[in-house]
Amino acid sequence: MRGVLILSGGVDSTTLLYKMLSDGYEVTALTFNYAQRHKKEIECARAIAERLHIRHKIIDLSSLASLLGDSALLGGKDVPSCHYTEEAAKKTVVPNRNMIMLSVAAGYAEAHEIPEVYYAAHKNDSTIYPDCRPEFVQALRPAIRLATAWHPVELQAPFVDMSKAEIVSMGLALEVPYELTWSCYRGEEHPCRSCPTCIEREEAFALNGRQDPLLGEKD
Amino acid sequence: MRGVLILSGGVDSTTLLYKMLSDGYEVTALTFNYAQRHKKEIECARAIAERLHIRHKIIDLSSLASLLGDSALLGGKDVPSCHYTEEAAKKTVVPNRNMIMLSVAAGYAEAHEIPEVYYAAHKNDSTIYPDCRPEFVQALRPAIRLATAWHPVELQAPFVDMSKAEIVSMGLALEVPYELTWSCYRGEEHPCRSCPTCIEREEAFALNGRQDPLLGEKD
Repeated sequence: MRGVLILSGGVDSTTLLYKMLSDGYEVTALTFNYAQRHKKEIECARAIAERLHIRHKIIDLSSLASLLGDSALLGGKDVPSCHYTEEAAKKTVVPNRNMIMLSVAAGYAEAHEIPEVYYAAHKNDSTIYPDCRPEFVQALRPAIRLATAWHPVELQAPFVDMSKAEIVSMGLALEVPYELTWSCYRGEEHPCRSCPTCIEREEAFALNGRQDPLLGEKD
Repeated sequence: MRGVLILSGGVDSTTLLYKMLSDGYEVTALTFNYAQRHKKEIECARAIAERLHIRHKIIDLSSLASLLGDSALLGGKDVPSCHYTEEAAKKTVVPNRNMIMLSVAAGYAEAHEIPEVYYAAHKNDSTIYPDCRPEFVQALRPAIRLATAWHPVELQAPFVDMSKAEIVSMGLALEVPYELTWSCYRGEEHPCRSCPTCIEREEAFALNGRQDPLLGEKD
């Protein structure tokens, strides 16, 4: 089995990578540089792919940043310091980012006759980001299938009904090296522990009765 | 009314631009550099946008070319010299190109709160390219709407049931300066008159009892 995975270098996509490998997939991972403030995640994705000896492509879409508005993730606004709220989510959304990445991934998959594209949208994301919701996945799936009619590509989002805590639970069982992953939107030396994704990550580990190994390193 | 248009610099999208302006739209045109062999079309798009004094962005996606296989349009295969056939179309397809461009256009539209994205897929294309077919447009439309939920963007493809000859007929009535447009996949000084898109273009003018002004210039 062969699959393309969008690998950000964060908790969710890294867990999905380990799950796919454990299920016997030959994975090609694609990581996107969209001029995100937290470029550190790209280096994390690279380190994870190298450790696993999988095919990995870093795709430069940084030219799009100036077109896609003033998201905090692109440096246009300050990163909010709070739990995810609709207001915080709107500051950190990059318009249509996931569809852009999935379109490129589907093109790559079709060109290489790989029948599946995976991404790690999950239930926490889906309450805040429109392009992580099950109805978006269900709508995009047939569009991708039709666009790639000569070598049909199927969109898979197996975590779409799972919480981040459930993903971490799966990942702990798979021995995912979470110390290699990165989430913090600020992208500084250590996680800020105050931006929405830091708070969510720390909670997901706490719900599993564990400390995030990234915080352990700091202390 | 405000709309984003994907403007290649060819006959179809240029006619759609004139139609939108004639309908009273304020148009932002997006032209994509995907490392196509016929880069000349990008300069044509620029000249058309300048003549019309519309907002125009040229978006550099050339970094994707190496990921998307060996299409003749990317220089990987020879451009076929024949009418469009399934075989010729397969040589010239760039996998998922239209969904990639439409995803970026939808992200741009959402970021700028522009409610519609237009592209000029038409009936001749739809018999050959999967991502020009009505069923693809119908599938992608709700996916874009869901992904841009905070400022919903609607996908419009008003030529999807029109032939290229019908588009040229509309454009002649709108006095589209077709001498400024470019179609030939070879992208040399003059149209080659033997690649699929040259043959199709010449036929569309002939069906309107007219000569393509681009050929007139040559003779």
